[in-house]
Amino acid sequence: MGTVETRYLDLPHPVRLDCGRELHPVRVAYETYGTLSPGRDNVILVCHALSGDAHAAGLAEAPPEAGTRDGFGAEERDGASGRGLGWWDGMIGPGKAFDTDRFFVVSTNLLGGCRGTTGPSSIDPATGRPYGADFPVITVADMVRTQRAFLDVLGIERLAAVAGGSLGGMQALEWAVLFPDQVDSIVVIASTHALHPQGVAWNAIARDSIMRDPAWQGGQYYGTGRAPDAGMGIGRMVGHITYLSAPALDDKFGRRLQFADDLRYTITEPEFEVENYLRHQADSFVRRFDANTYLYVSRALTYFDLARQHGGGSLARALEGVRARTLLIAFSSDWLYPPSASEEIERALRALGKPVEFNVIDAPYGHDCFLLEEARQTPVIRRFLAHGQAG
Amino acid sequence: MGTVETRYLDLPHPVRLDCGRELHPVRVAYETYGTLSPGRDNVILVCHALSGDAHAAGLAEAPPEAGTRDGFGAEERDGASGRGLGWWDGMIGPGKAFDTDRFFVVSTNLLGGCRGTTGPSSIDPATGRPYGADFPVITVADMVRTQRAFLDVLGIERLAAVAGGSLGGMQALEWAVLFPDQVDSIVVIASTHALHPQGVAWNAIARDSIMRDPAWQGGQYYGTGRAPDAGMGIGRMVGHITYLSAPALDDKFGRRLQFADDLRYTITEPEFEVENYLRHQADSFVRRFDANTYLYVSRALTYFDLARQHGGGSLARALEGVRARTLLIAFSSDWLYPPSASEEIERALRALGKPVEFNVIDAPYGHDCFLLEEARQTPVIRRFLAHGQAG
Repeated sequence: MGTVETRYLDLPHPVRLDCGRELHPVRVAYETYGTLSPGRDNVILVCHALSGDAHAAGLAEAPPEAGTRDGFGAEERDGASGRGLGWWDGMIGPGKAFDTDRFFVVSTNLLGGCRGTTGPSSIDPATGRPYGADFPVITVADMVRTQRAFLDVLGIERLAAVAGGSLGGMQALEWAVLFPDQVDSIVVIASTHALHPQGVAWNAIARDSIMRDPAWQGGQYYGTGRAPDAGMGIGRMVGHITYLSAPALDDKFGRRLQFADDLRYTITEPEFEVENYLRHQADSFVRRFDANTYLYVSRALTYFDLARQHGGGSLARALEGVRARTLLIAFSSDWLYPPSASEEIERALRALGKPVEFNVIDAPYGHDCFLLEEARQTPVIRRFLAHGQAG
Repeated sequence: MGTVETRYLDLPHPVRLDCGRELHPVRVAYETYGTLSPGRDNVILVCHALSGDAHAAGLAEAPPEAGTRDGFGAEERDGASGRGLGWWDGMIGPGKAFDTDRFFVVSTNLLGGCRGTTGPSSIDPATGRPYGADFPVITVADMVRTQRAFLDVLGIERLAAVAGGSLGGMQALEWAVLFPDQVDSIVVIASTHALHPQGVAWNAIARDSIMRDPAWQGGQYYGTGRAPDAGMGIGRMVGHITYLSAPALDDKFGRRLQFADDLRYTITEPEFEVENYLRHQADSFVRRFDANTYLYVSRALTYFDLARQHGGGSLARALEGVRARTLLIAFSSDWLYPPSASEEIERALRALGKPVEFNVIDAPYGHDCFLLEEARQTPVIRRFLAHGQAG
């Protein structure tokens, strides 16, 4: 995609939230790739997961707008997307899964984010200070309504597709339910209609780890020179292990020691390579991510539950109004968002007579596959999107 | 077993440790059940797991000797073993798996423990203060050598069996390798010859969580009025989820909310039942367990690796000298100590022509099965032990 720049747009109206509050002002950070067709009918919205941002493809031109957190700025750019490349660069571009020769791909940082879109590190106009824990508790539907309002400003009414993995897939599903007449198709990867209780538990542990860190300071750590890095690091380690499969960890690290076959008999230092890797992952994550955003986005993704939100407990009823064609992709080794969850969506849609396609890709890397297995997702997605254009 | 009392014994000699240091004095907390035969040939040693203690069976008569940690004492007794019953009460007693009508069952708190045996909360004679992080880093072999020295004082040379689940099973394996002529049989339940890298990672996260808690104070929190409860609570939550299977969590909690179907839109309070359960587990654990013991015992169980320790990397070579009959039990839903690990031990022993029996019990509760599935383990263990007596 070459070099791209993250841009910012202020929504003209307040966003009404599920919790009953309204949020204003709301700024949205976004990037676009490809060219909008004259008929404005070639738009694909890609939605990022918990720790992503608007920079989905290409090389970052400049760091995103700095947050208000001390030292939260330029140097983290690399960490976010690996040497400045967007987090889904392998999937978005000419000839790629989301082909920018045909589609106009739009990517936004989600509501509650810390990479340019309004979130808990943004200034609360009521106090002149960052919101912190006064930021309203948000939902996936709130994220989607924010994207809807943002696209309104761009003059884009219909979407050829909404696509995303993990939390991004939840947003795609929410789009299809909330705005059935405005979405032609959704691509839901390594996602679910409702996270299983073990996933809810992992998220709770990560959040508790942040909030139990005294440096969290009830959420008002901005400008204090301290941030709950220790706690968020633990949360990230937990997340990281849940994103990988046990066999992948075995392949990658085995039980190899840091120092050949010599135990050093230490409690405080990493002794196994996998221990060292985890600490490194935690350290690089806390340099680029805001802990309060982690709390709010994690909470939103555990709340997400199509059946409860839209079907009075029934997934079938929740999906009754869907008009988008649906592509579901899951990965055999993903135990956080297991194929069984996608299968439940497939069954419900099929029973309703809705067009749905479900692919399980046999791959060993766990949940992270949605970011790694680009080559095998690409033909599936291209075929699915081409079919939509033909029909 | 009726009411039992934990007793204490001071070892006459220093214990020589794998790390090269010697530990002295060493006190061992222990309980016994049943009657020692005149020939002293009916002794079964049961070994506890990470958070256990010497109180394996019966009703506790009195709280164990108080540790040096502030407020660490009597009221935790119940939490340790559920209303005062030993942690393996369903398995030890007349007519039970470890039948006290025939066997003299001995249970000790392991080296490094916090329930009466010398550990990091014990007084370091060199300083007159608790060891804290100056306690030497210990191994499973060190635990076993301590048990060996303890049994010497009791005048017990041979063991009819060594039995345990999880870390307790590691101790049984270590016994069979270190003292092949003194162990007739081992019962290794939900255990492994070397924890897989994902398990190493979970343990590293739990330890880091304790050590990143500022209240840990480099391990010298004793007497300060503060302890790393927040961090150890997180570690315990992680542990708890790894001890259960995802389907068991689903059965037990589903996605049920604390308050019917009403979201409260809160970041700080538990919203799902499973979140509330986790916090409760964490809170009750930190009241009864010492964080430094958690660190040391967790480190020991990740170090444990029969092939590395005794076989130059080969499990077969490590097991060459084993003379004990081996019973392996694993549980189908245990993903922390999966059946595959026991199968590797079985294969290695069988290839060496050693007597070994392997049972996989199909049960849904994950690793916790070794504490829960008493009814189904009992006939398997009784048959195995009876065969030993007959032969």
